[in-house]
Amino acid sequence: MKTLLAALSTAGLLAGSALADEAQGVQVTRVGTQASAVGSGAYFTGTVRIDAPFAGSGAARIGGASVTFEPAARTAWHTHPLGQTLIVTAGAGRVQHWGGPVQTIRAGDTVWIPPGVKHWHGASPTVAMTHIAIAEAMDGKVVEWMEQVGEAHYTTTPAAE
Amino acid sequence: MKTLLAALSTAGLLAGSALADEAQGVQVTRVGTQASAVGSGAYFTGTVRIDAPFAGSGAARIGGASVTFEPAARTAWHTHPLGQTLIVTAGAGRVQHWGGPVQTIRAGDTVWIPPGVKHWHGASPTVAMTHIAIAEAMDGKVVEWMEQVGEAHYTTTPAAE
Repeated sequence: MKTLLAALSTAGLLAGSALADEAQGVQVTRVGTQASAVGSGAYFTGTVRIDAPFAGSGAARIGGASVTFEPAARTAWHTHPLGQTLIVTAGAGRVQHWGGPVQTIRAGDTVWIPPGVKHWHGASPTVAMTHIAIAEAMDGKVVEWMEQVGEAHYTTTPAAE
Repeated sequence: MKTLLAALSTAGLLAGSALADEAQGVQVTRVGTQASAVGSGAYFTGTVRIDAPFAGSGAARIGGASVTFEPAARTAWHTHPLGQTLIVTAGAGRVQHWGGPVQTIRAGDTVWIPPGVKHWHGASPTVAMTHIAIAEAMDGKVVEWMEQVGEAHYTTTPAAE
């Protein structure tokens, strides 16, 4: 668990979160026991908060967190070596892969970003969005960060559904 | 994706869910487009509903779903070859590993069950519980099911927190 959280921290995704010790049995992490973290300006545009990080142990590769994007906030372009699942838990936002349409996502939607697909995700320009983000680490690497998403690009009208 | 969902279906976790086609780009699954499924009586005690299943593609091993346990409903004893993450999204429930205390879990808590640890999870006797369950498949296998959790065992007083 510490390895994966350390990788997230190195990637700028986490700062100051509590790292629970591994346990041989069931490990319960209580709500409210891990400090909220701020998404690094190197990898996000706007105000982004990261809560309740989690990660597996042993041979597991899984890790993730709840991520809240204030209106107009978004990730930079990036890829995940083993893909990423997003479960939208509040609000409405946007997601796009390189060369594809901007798509609107809302609470209850799930998103699969396949391995290696360059993409971004974030809030709507006027509405905040929270999602649980889950990814598998490959050789300890969860994400490769690229350039920020500029205003003209971000404000492209989403595709019809 | 179809492989993992098929594995879940074979394991009795899913029935009748829509299987989305894989896509090269971002794949958005809209809330309300996958039918609720019923947890099989072979693997659960009581009334259990499974919603919004998801799974990765390519080299990803990840898959999961939202699972709702009516009061007193619970899984049978089982293990996961690569562990399982539970994110409690509503209500209050219980979790226990073999030989360990019954622990109360509530909305907002996260739970890590390490690979190979025999355990069960479910609702409280009088209160329903919903969690997102996430696990990695090993050689297509997500879970190994064992015996049901009997009443005397299930109603053990939870440990103090």
